[in-house]
Amino acid sequence: MASIRDDEATGNGYLDGESQAREPEEQILNHRKVMEQEKNGLEDGDDEKKEVMSTEMIFKDKEVPTWRNQLTVRAFVVSFLLGILLSVIVMKFNLTTGIVPSLNVSAGLLGFFFVKTWTKLLERSGMLKQPFTRQENTVIQTCVVATSGIAFSGGFGSYLFAMSETISKQVTEANDSQNTKSLSLGWIIGFLFTVSFLGLFSVLPLRKIMIIDFKLIYPSGTATAHLINSFHTPQGAKLAKKQVKALGKFLSFSFLWGFFQWFYTAGSDCGFASFPSLGLKAYENRFYFDFSPSYVGVGMICPYIINISLLVGAILSWGIMWPLIENREGDWYKSGLPSSNLHGIQGYRVFIAIAMILGDGLYNFAKVLGKTTTGLVNQLKNKEPSVILPVADKASPEAKAASFDDQCRTQLFLQDQIPSRLALGGYVLIASISTAVLPQIFQQLRWYYVLVIYIFAPVLAFCNAYGCGLTDWSLAPTYGKLAIFTIGAWAGKDQGGVLAGLAACGVMMNIVSTASDLTQDFKTGYMTLASPRAMFVSQVIGTAMGCVISPCVFWLFYKAYDGIGTIGSQYPAPNALVFRNMAILGVDGFSSLPRNCLTLCYIFFAGAIIINAFRDFAPKKWAKYIPLPMAMAIPFYLGSYFAIDMCVGSLVLFIWEKIDKVKADAFGPAVASGLICGDGIWTLPSSILALAGVKPPICMKFLSRGTNVKVDKFLNS
Amino acid sequence: MASIRDDEATGNGYLDGESQAREPEEQILNHRKVMEQEKNGLEDGDDEKKEVMSTEMIFKDKEVPTWRNQLTVRAFVVSFLLGILLSVIVMKFNLTTGIVPSLNVSAGLLGFFFVKTWTKLLERSGMLKQPFTRQENTVIQTCVVATSGIAFSGGFGSYLFAMSETISKQVTEANDSQNTKSLSLGWIIGFLFTVSFLGLFSVLPLRKIMIIDFKLIYPSGTATAHLINSFHTPQGAKLAKKQVKALGKFLSFSFLWGFFQWFYTAGSDCGFASFPSLGLKAYENRFYFDFSPSYVGVGMICPYIINISLLVGAILSWGIMWPLIENREGDWYKSGLPSSNLHGIQGYRVFIAIAMILGDGLYNFAKVLGKTTTGLVNQLKNKEPSVILPVADKASPEAKAASFDDQCRTQLFLQDQIPSRLALGGYVLIASISTAVLPQIFQQLRWYYVLVIYIFAPVLAFCNAYGCGLTDWSLAPTYGKLAIFTIGAWAGKDQGGVLAGLAACGVMMNIVSTASDLTQDFKTGYMTLASPRAMFVSQVIGTAMGCVISPCVFWLFYKAYDGIGTIGSQYPAPNALVFRNMAILGVDGFSSLPRNCLTLCYIFFAGAIIINAFRDFAPKKWAKYIPLPMAMAIPFYLGSYFAIDMCVGSLVLFIWEKIDKVKADAFGPAVASGLICGDGIWTLPSSILALAGVKPPICMKFLSRGTNVKVDKFLNS
Repeated sequence: MASIRDDEATGNGYLDGESQAREPEEQILNHRKVMEQEKNGLEDGDDEKKEVMSTEMIFKDKEVPTWRNQLTVRAFVVSFLLGILLSVIVMKFNLTTGIVPSLNVSAGLLGFFFVKTWTKLLERSGMLKQPFTRQENTVIQTCVVATSGIAFSGGFGSYLFAMSETISKQVTEANDSQNTKSLSLGWIIGFLFTVSFLGLFSVLPLRKIMIIDFKLIYPSGTATAHLINSFHTPQGAKLAKKQVKALGKFLSFSFLWGFFQWFYTAGSDCGFASFPSLGLKAYENRFYFDFSPSYVGVGMICPYIINISLLVGAILSWGIMWPLIENREGDWYKSGLPSSNLHGIQGYRVFIAIAMILGDGLYNFAKVLGKTTTGLVNQLKNKEPSVILPVADKASPEAKAASFDDQCRTQLFLQDQIPSRLALGGYVLIASISTAVLPQIFQQLRWYYVLVIYIFAPVLAFCNAYGCGLTDWSLAPTYGKLAIFTIGAWAGKDQGGVLAGLAACGVMMNIVSTASDLTQDFKTGYMTLASPRAMFVSQVIGTAMGCVISPCVFWLFYKAYDGIGTIGSQYPAPNALVFRNMAILGVDGFSSLPRNCLTLCYIFFAGAIIINAFRDFAPKKWAKYIPLPMAMAIPFYLGSYFAIDMCVGSLVLFIWEKIDKVKADAFGPAVASGLICGDGIWTLPSSILALAGVKPPICMKFLSRGTNVKVDKFLNS
Repeated sequence: MASIRDDEATGNGYLDGESQAREPEEQILNHRKVMEQEKNGLEDGDDEKKEVMSTEMIFKDKEVPTWRNQLTVRAFVVSFLLGILLSVIVMKFNLTTGIVPSLNVSAGLLGFFFVKTWTKLLERSGMLKQPFTRQENTVIQTCVVATSGIAFSGGFGSYLFAMSETISKQVTEANDSQNTKSLSLGWIIGFLFTVSFLGLFSVLPLRKIMIIDFKLIYPSGTATAHLINSFHTPQGAKLAKKQVKALGKFLSFSFLWGFFQWFYTAGSDCGFASFPSLGLKAYENRFYFDFSPSYVGVGMICPYIINISLLVGAILSWGIMWPLIENREGDWYKSGLPSSNLHGIQGYRVFIAIAMILGDGLYNFAKVLGKTTTGLVNQLKNKEPSVILPVADKASPEAKAASFDDQCRTQLFLQDQIPSRLALGGYVLIASISTAVLPQIFQQLRWYYVLVIYIFAPVLAFCNAYGCGLTDWSLAPTYGKLAIFTIGAWAGKDQGGVLAGLAACGVMMNIVSTASDLTQDFKTGYMTLASPRAMFVSQVIGTAMGCVISPCVFWLFYKAYDGIGTIGSQYPAPNALVFRNMAILGVDGFSSLPRNCLTLCYIFFAGAIIINAFRDFAPKKWAKYIPLPMAMAIPFYLGSYFAIDMCVGSLVLFIWEKIDKVKADAFGPAVASGLICGDGIWTLPSSILALAGVKPPICMKFLSRGTNVKVDKFLNS
C-alpha cells in the first residue's frame, strides 16, 4: 500500500513517490538512532556510531518456522480485526476527501501490539505453543494490507460510487438508466470477488526476476521489513512498545474527541466541523480548521511540500479564482444556479481540477514509463537497474554484511516454490469466469471488452509492479482512467459508455493495484525470511476478507448518512463526482462545459506539466520548494479545510522536530497513526448511532452578530 | 495576601487556613527536593539527603544593602506594572465569583523574572550599578501585595459595589436614595486614601513583639520568604528560571485562548463560556465547564478538599434543592417572578448561602479567638505560643543552624527602628482626618460612628494580625460584617442604615486586612534580612499605588461591560448582592424572606457549625474528607460552572502528581499562575475593546435539536 493514495487521477503515484521516497532510508536511520540512544541512556546519538552488523546475523539463532507454521490462526484473527478497522478508516478517507494516507506503519504497530499481548497472556497461562516470529508478523502485515487495499481499489469513493444515482443526478449529462446502476451489497461483493484475485496471479511467476534478479528496491516494502525486523530485536521491541503506547494515547484522545464532537452536531453546519476558526467570511470560502484529528495526523505523515501544495492550491482557487469567476455570474454562466450545478461555478471547480490532475498524470505516466523502459532494457543487458541504493565498497564490512543477508534471504526465498502452472492456470481460469460473469453484472460491459482488458492486463500489471519497485509509485488509478477513456469511447454514450467505462476502470485498477501490492509484500517477506508461499496464501485470504469487509463497511456508511455523496455534506465522496465527469468527458467530449472553462482547463493542464518539468529540471535546491500540481488540484473543488488541518499537522511536526528531532522522527508516525485510527474507530459507533436513529442533542451554531440578534428576537417571541 | 480570599463572609479565613496550612512546609520541602534532584542529575531525590545547612550561612558572603538601597526605582517601576496586572486579575475574580486565589507565588515569580531580565540587560550594557538582592525582591513582593490587596479590601466586588443602584434595584427592600450611592471615580479614590493607611500604623509598634518575642509563624509569609531565599541561591535561580519559563508558556496559551474565545461571544449565551459541555439540561442548572483557564488555575492552587466541597455544594443546591423548591413555585413563593427576584427562588439561593457562610464564620471566629486568647495568655506567662513548629533537640545541627539564622535576622530586624512616636502620631493624625472626611463622603455615616470604629480598630487589628500569625487565617471580612450589623442597626433603616453599614464595613475591613498583611510581610522581611524600614516604606508606596490603580481598574470594568453586577451576566459580582442583603438583614430583620426560607436558613446555619465541629473533632483520617461549609455555600447562588473548572484543575494536578510528584509540586504553581495571569492580562485589551465599542463578530450558539430546526426554518424563510 502506498503512502498517499489519491484515488483522483494519474497523479496518484506522484504523491506516493514523494512521501515514500524519503521514508525508507530515513525511517531506518531514525530507528537505529533511537535504539542507540536507548542504549546510551538517551545521550546524544551520533551518526558515527552506526553499527556495521548484518541483520540476519542478529537473527541467526532464531529458527525460521515452516511456511505452514507461519500461517497461524491467531495471525488471521488479528488480521481480520485490523482489516475491519483499517477498512473503516480508508473508507472514511475515500468518502471525505479521497486522500488516503499510508497505514502501513499503523498496521505494523497495531499488529505487533495485538499479537504480542496475545502471546504474553498465553505465555503467562502456560498455553503458548508457538512464539511470535517476524515471519508471522509479516504474514499479518500482508494480510491486513491486502484487506484494506480493497477498500481503496474497490472504488467506493470513486468509480463504483460514480455509477450510482446519487452521483448521476448531480450531473445533467448521461444520467439515464443506461448509464447508472443502483448500488446493492450483493453485486458489489460479487464484482470484487471476480476481479480482485487476478492481480495476484498475474505477477506471481515473475517474482523471482523482480526480487532476486533485478534486486528492485520497493522502498515501502523495504521500510516495512526494517520496521518488522527491528520490532523483533530486544531493543526494537522496547521502542516498539513505547511507540505503541504513544499510538494508544493519541488513539484514545482522538476517539474521545470524536465522541465529544458528536453531541454538538444536530443539523447541518453544526459542530466543530463547521467552526469558523478564521472568521465567517473565510468560512464561506471554505477556509477553516475543522478540528479533525484524522487529517492533522495525515498532515503529520505527509511531506511538508504536499501540505503546502494543498494550501497553495486552496488559496489560488478559493481565495482568488472562484471569487473572480463568481463576479462573472450571469455573464460566463447562468445566474441563480444552485452552487452544486456543474453548469455554474461548480463546473469550473471540477473541470479545472480534472485538467490539472490529468496534466500531472500524463507527465508522470510518461516519466515512469520512460524509467521502466530504460530500467528493463538495462536489466536485459544484464546490468544493474538504473536506480539503485548506493552500494559501498565491495570489500567493506557493510558489503560483507549485505552479502551474508542476501545469501540467507535468497536461499529461503527460493526454498518454497509456487509452481508456475498454478499461476498461469489460476489466471486463465479466473479470467474466463470473470469474462463470463462481469457482463451479467453490467450489461453495458460486453464480454469482449473484458477479454481485451484481460489480455493487456498482465503487461500493465508487470509495468506497474516494476515501476513501483523502482520508484515506489503505483500508477493504478492512471491505468484505471485509461480504461475509462478507451472502453467508454468504444462503447459510446448510447450503449451506456459511461457505465461501461467506470466498470472497466474497476477491472483494470484492481488487477494493476494488487499486482504491485503483492510484489511489494514479496520484498518485505524476502527481507524478513517469510516464505513466499505463506505470503501468497496470506494475500489470498486477505483479499477474500477485503471483498466482504469493504462492501459491508461501505454499506454501513451508505445507509447511515443522508446526503452521502453530495458536496457540502459530511461525506461528499468528491472523487465519485470527478470520476463520473471524466467518464462523461470520455464519451461526450467538451460540449457541456460552461463558458471559458475549456480555455482555463487547457491553461491548467499545460501548467501542471510545466510545473512538473520545473520540479524535475530546476536545481534541486529550488525544486523542492515548487508545489505539486496534483496536490494543488484537490482543494480546487473541495475547499481548503482539510488542507488547513494537514498544515496544522505539518506545523506540529515541524515544531516537534525543532525541539527534538530524534523523538519526533521515532514517535511522529505513531502519534499520527493514533490520531487517524482513533477518529476512524469513532466512525464505527457513530454510524451505528446514525443507523439506529439516535441523533445528537445539541447544535453548536455559528451566527454573525447581526443574524444572532434576529435569531434571539425570533426565539424570544 | 492570603491564599484564597473569599470576600463572602466570616468563613474567609477558613479557606485561607486550609490552603496555606499545608503550603509552607510542603513548598519548602519540594523546593529542596527539586533542587537536590537538579544537583543529582534528576535521579531519585530521597528525603534523607536533606541538608542541615543554615540559610544565612549560604548567604553570609553577600552584603546586605542599607535600607535606602533596598528601595530602588526599578523595584517600584516593576511593582507598579505588576500591581496593575494583579489588580486586574483580582478585580476579575471579585466580579466573577468572588473567589480570589493567592497570587503571592505569581508575584514572586514575575517580580523575580522582571528584575532579573532588567539587571541582565543592564549588566550586558555595562550600566548595572546595583545587583539584584533578595532584599530588593522582598520589597517588590511587599509593594505588589499591598497594591493588589486594595483591589480586594477596596470592596469593589462587595461592600462598595453593594452601595450602587445597579445592585440596589435588584432588591425590593431599602432601595431608596438614602440607602444607595451612585459610584464615581472621585469619591472612591478619596475614600480609599482616607481608610487604607490606618492599618499600617496600627500594628507598627507591635511588630517586634509578634515577630521576635512571640516568634509567630505566619505560614504564607514564611513560605514566600523561603521562595525568595531559594531564588537567590544559584540552584534556586536555575529552578526559578524554569518555573518562570513554564509560567510564561501557560500565560501565553491562556492569553491567546482568551483572545480566540472573544471572537465567538457576540451576544449573551454565546461563546465557550456558555458551552453546554455536560448537555443542555445540565447547562440550564448551571452545570458546565466554561473553558476559563483562570479557574482551572485556581483549582490547581487550591487544596483538593476545597474544590470537592464546591462541587458537593453545587450538586446539593443546583442538583437537588433548587429543583425541589422550584416545584413549589406558586405555593412557597409567587409564581412568574423573574429568576433574579429575591422574593422568588433567588431568595432561597442567596439567604441559605448567607446563613451557611455566617454559621461557618461564627464557628471559626470563636475558634480563632479562642486560640488567640490562649496563645496570648501563654505568651504573657512567658511560655512558647501554643502552636509552634516542631523544634528539634537544642544540641542538634538543625538547632545550631536555626539559632545562627535567628541571630543574624534579629540583629538586622532591630537595626533599622521606626520610632513608636511616628506610628502613634501617624495613627492619630490619619484617624482624625478620616473622621472628618468620611461623613463628607457618606452623610449617612456620622462622625461618631467612625470615631467608635477607630477606637476599637487597633485591638481588632492586633487580634487579626496575631491570629493570622498563628493560623494563617485573616478574618478581615468577618470583622467587616460585624461592622455592617452593628453600625447598620445603630443607624437604622430610615437614617440610611444600609449604606452606613456598608461604609463602616469598608472602614473596618481595610484596617484589619492591611494590619495582618503588613505583619505577614514583616515576617518575610525578617527571614530575608530586609530592613523593616524599607518594608514599611514599600507598603506605604504600594498602598498609595493601590488606592489609585484599583479604582481605575474597577472603573474600566464598570464602564466597559453592560450588565455588570447582575446575576447571569459576564461579571455578576455576586458578593455585592450578598453584602447588600446582609446589610438589609441587619437593619430590617427577616421580614422579607420568602416562605420556609428562614427555617432552611436555620438548618444550614446549624449545619455549617456542626460540619465544622466534625472536621475538628472527628479522627484526622476521616476529617480530611469532610467538605468545608464555607466552600459549599459559594455555588449555592452562583451555580457550579466555576466549581467544575476548579475540579478540572484539581484533576489535572492529581494526574500530574501521579505521574511525577516532584515535578508537579515544583511546576504546578507556576503553571497555575500562568493560566491565571494570561487570562487576567487578556481582560485588559478585552475591556478596552468593549470600551471602544468593538464588538465580537461571531456568536457561537448552542441550540437543542428542536430549536435548531425552527431557527434554520426561520433563517431560510
